[in-house]
Amino acid sequence: MSTDAQALTFRSAPVEQANQIAYERLTQAQPVLTDIQPAGDVVPGMTPNTILTSGAPLQWGQYYGGQRNAIIYGALYEGLAATADEADRKLHEGEIVVGSTHAHGCVGSVAGIYTASMPVFVVDDTTHGNRAFCNFYEGESRRRLNYGVYDQEVADGLRFIQHQLAPVLREAVLRSGGIPLKPLISRALRMGDELHSRNTASTTLFARELTPAFIDLAADGQRAQVHTALEFLYASDYFFLRLAMAAAKATADAARDVEGSSVVTAMTISCLEFSIRVSGLGDTWFSGPLPEVDCQLFEGFTEDDIQWIGGESHITETVGLGGFAQAAAFGLQAYQGGSAAEMARLNELMYAITVGEHPDFLIPYFGFRGSPVGIDIQKVVATGTVPVIDGGLAGKNGGQIGAGILRAPLECFQAANSAFQQRYPVEPR
Amino acid sequence: MSTDAQALTFRSAPVEQANQIAYERLTQAQPVLTDIQPAGDVVPGMTPNTILTSGAPLQWGQYYGGQRNAIIYGALYEGLAATADEADRKLHEGEIVVGSTHAHGCVGSVAGIYTASMPVFVVDDTTHGNRAFCNFYEGESRRRLNYGVYDQEVADGLRFIQHQLAPVLREAVLRSGGIPLKPLISRALRMGDELHSRNTASTTLFARELTPAFIDLAADGQRAQVHTALEFLYASDYFFLRLAMAAAKATADAARDVEGSSVVTAMTISCLEFSIRVSGLGDTWFSGPLPEVDCQLFEGFTEDDIQWIGGESHITETVGLGGFAQAAAFGLQAYQGGSAAEMARLNELMYAITVGEHPDFLIPYFGFRGSPVGIDIQKVVATGTVPVIDGGLAGKNGGQIGAGILRAPLECFQAANSAFQQRYPVEPR
Repeated sequence: MSTDAQALTFRSAPVEQANQIAYERLTQAQPVLTDIQPAGDVVPGMTPNTILTSGAPLQWGQYYGGQRNAIIYGALYEGLAATADEADRKLHEGEIVVGSTHAHGCVGSVAGIYTASMPVFVVDDTTHGNRAFCNFYEGESRRRLNYGVYDQEVADGLRFIQHQLAPVLREAVLRSGGIPLKPLISRALRMGDELHSRNTASTTLFARELTPAFIDLAADGQRAQVHTALEFLYASDYFFLRLAMAAAKATADAARDVEGSSVVTAMTISCLEFSIRVSGLGDTWFSGPLPEVDCQLFEGFTEDDIQWIGGESHITETVGLGGFAQAAAFGLQAYQGGSAAEMARLNELMYAITVGEHPDFLIPYFGFRGSPVGIDIQKVVATGTVPVIDGGLAGKNGGQIGAGILRAPLECFQAANSAFQQRYPVEPR
Repeated sequence: MSTDAQALTFRSAPVEQANQIAYERLTQAQPVLTDIQPAGDVVPGMTPNTILTSGAPLQWGQYYGGQRNAIIYGALYEGLAATADEADRKLHEGEIVVGSTHAHGCVGSVAGIYTASMPVFVVDDTTHGNRAFCNFYEGESRRRLNYGVYDQEVADGLRFIQHQLAPVLREAVLRSGGIPLKPLISRALRMGDELHSRNTASTTLFARELTPAFIDLAADGQRAQVHTALEFLYASDYFFLRLAMAAAKATADAARDVEGSSVVTAMTISCLEFSIRVSGLGDTWFSGPLPEVDCQLFEGFTEDDIQWIGGESHITETVGLGGFAQAAAFGLQAYQGGSAAEMARLNELMYAITVGEHPDFLIPYFGFRGSPVGIDIQKVVATGTVPVIDGGLAGKNGGQIGAGILRAPLECFQAANSAFQQRYPVEPR
C-alpha cells in the first residue's frame, strides 16, 4: 500500500465527512441564468483595462504563442491599444492588466479572453447564493478569438454578439424571469449531450425555453431582432457550452472552502501548465505539465500542430459532466474519435476517483446511473487514475484544429495531495 | 438447411435485385410535411360517415373490446350517432362505414381512429410522388381516444386539436414552405430518439423548425394562438410520433409493388391479429397471432390487463426506426424497461433480417452504423428471428397501461413466404 493510500485509510472518517459536504454542495446547487450584462458592469474586479484569460495566473512575460496573441487581440478589440506592439508595451507596464478568469468568478473557453465591453451570462446558484459568469460562444467558425485568431471577421462577430445578439437575448431572459439551467442539463444528458464537447440538445432546449419570450418580443415590435437571435442560436450547436460552463462554475464554487475536503473545485490550463484547486486548500493552484491527449484532428493537421493556449471548459468535468458523462453522448465519436466502448470504459473509470453519483445527472446507457461527481485528489493519487476531459484543440497558427480526450496530469494531484497532508496532518492512532 | 433457406439460396439473384430496388426506395424517400387538413378533405375515399381504424380489415361484428369501443366513440365524436347503441346499429347496417387506415394512405396509432373532421398531417414523398397521412397526438394523458377512452375531457381535447391547434400549426407549416421530415429524423437519432416510443428530440426539433414562422405569426397578430400551439407542443414529448408515422408510411408506400421483392411494406395489428404486407405480393395482408411482449406496466397493472386494440405505429420499424434503431435511444429504458445491453442486442439482431443499412439513419452507439432497413420475409423465415417493435400497451378498461418490446409473430412471415414462393416459383436449375 502506498503512502497516499495509507493516508486515505487513516483519515478517511473526517475527510469523508468533509467530502460529503462538498458533494452535497456540488449536487444541490441550482444555477439559474438571471441576466446578461457587459463584463465591466458585473464581473467583480473587472476594470476597463482588464483582460481576463484562462489558467492559473502568469506574469505577462510568461504567456506565449496563441494565448499571448489572444490577450493582445483582446486589447485591440477593446480599443486599449491600436497595435500589437502598443498592447505588448502596455501589458508589460501594467497599463493593461491581465487577470485570471477564476479570480473573477469567470471561466474561459480555450484562451478565454474577456474584455470589459463583452457581454457575459450571469448565473446565480440560488441554493448557495454565489454567482458566476461566462462570455459568449463566437459561432461555428474554426477561427475565433478564444482560439487565438483575430481579424476583421472575428471582430465583426464579437461586435455582432455584443450589439445585436446580447441585447435581445437579455430581454428574453429577463422576460422569462431567469432560466434554471440544471433542468436543461439533466434533460440534455438524455438527449445525447455531455455538456462539454456536445451541446446540441442543450442549445436546442435553451432556445426552446426562451421561445415564449421571443414570441412576445416579436409581437411587441422586435420581430427582426428575434429572427437574428434565433438564426445565431440555430446555427450554433455549441452555444450552450458557455452556459454549461457558467452553471458548472457556480456549482463548483459552492463547494469551495469546505474545511478538510479533498474534492477538486476547479481545473485549468494555461499555455504553460495544468492546474487544480482543492476545496480544503483555499485558492492555491497546484500545477503539473500540460495534458496528454487522444485526438481526432481536422484534415490536414497532425499532433505536432497542437498548441496549448489555455482552457477551463473542464469546469464541466469538475461537476460530473463532459468526460464524466461521455457515455451519454456517443455522438461525440464523430467529433473527437474513439469508440462507444472506449467512451463507456473511460466514463466508468471516473467512478473510482469521485465521491458519489449525481442524483440529477443520469446516464441512460448506464441504466440511469448518476454521473461520477466530486473528484477526490486522494483517490486520484491512490489509484493513479486521472480525470478524462473532452476538449477542443487549438493549432499553432491559431484556430481550432480538432478535438479529443485529454488526460489531466497526475503531478498536480500529487502536489495537491502533499499540501493536503501537510494542512490536515493524520492524527496519531 | 431448411426448405425456406434453400428457397432463399435458389432464387437469391432476382429477389436480391428486386429487394435492392425496394431498399433504394425505402432509403431515398424524402417525406415532407406539406399541409394539415381535415381528413375528409384530403384522405382518398374518406367520406363524412367513414371511420378509419388500425389493422387488416375486419367485419364490424369481429371488432371487440377497446377497438370496438374506439370506433363507436369516433362515431359519437363525429356526431354520426347520439348513443353507442345507435352507432352500433348504424355500423351493422353500413350507414357508418369502418375503413382500414392503410387502405386510405393513413396509419393508426393504437386503435387509430380517424373521422372526417379530424385534422391530419399531409406528408408527400417528394422523391417518388406518393402521399401519406396521420392524425394528431392527443397529448400526454393516458386516457385518449386512440387508447379506447372517450369522455368529456377526451372530446374537449380532440376539439382543441381540431379548432385551436391545427389551424395555427397549418399556417406555420405553410409559411415555412413545408417541413422536410427526414433531416429531423436523422438528427433526432443522434439525440436519443428512435422515433417510435421516444420522440422527445424530434418533437423539440419540429417545434424549432416552425419557430421562425411562429415569430412571424406572433408579429402579425396571432400571439395568443402561437402561445397555445407552443404550450401543447412543449407539453407533448410524443407529438412527433404521428409525423414519424406519416413519414414512414410515405416511405414504406414508395417501396410497394416492386415485382419480385420479399420486403415488408407494412405491419399492422387489429384486436384479432398481426398482419404484414409484402412489396411483391400486392395489397394482400398475411396474418398471424397477436404479438408477444416484454413490457413495463404502469403501477397497479399486470400483464392480464393488456388488451390488443389495434396499432400501426410500427410502420416506423418498417423503415428502420423504432425497435430497429433502439440502440440510439437508451433513455427508453425508463419507459419500457429492459437494459441498454439488451436494447443493443435486439437492435443488432435486426441486421440479420433486413436488406441493408440505412444511409441516413445512423446509430451513434454502433459507431454510426446505419440502422437495419428493409425487412425481408425470407430472412425472417430462414432465421426464425422476428422484428422487434417498441410499443405502447392498452388496458382492458381503456387507456395506456404501459409500454414494451413486441415481437412480431413468425406465422405471418411464414404465410407470406408461402404465397411468395407460389407467386414467384423457383426456376429449375
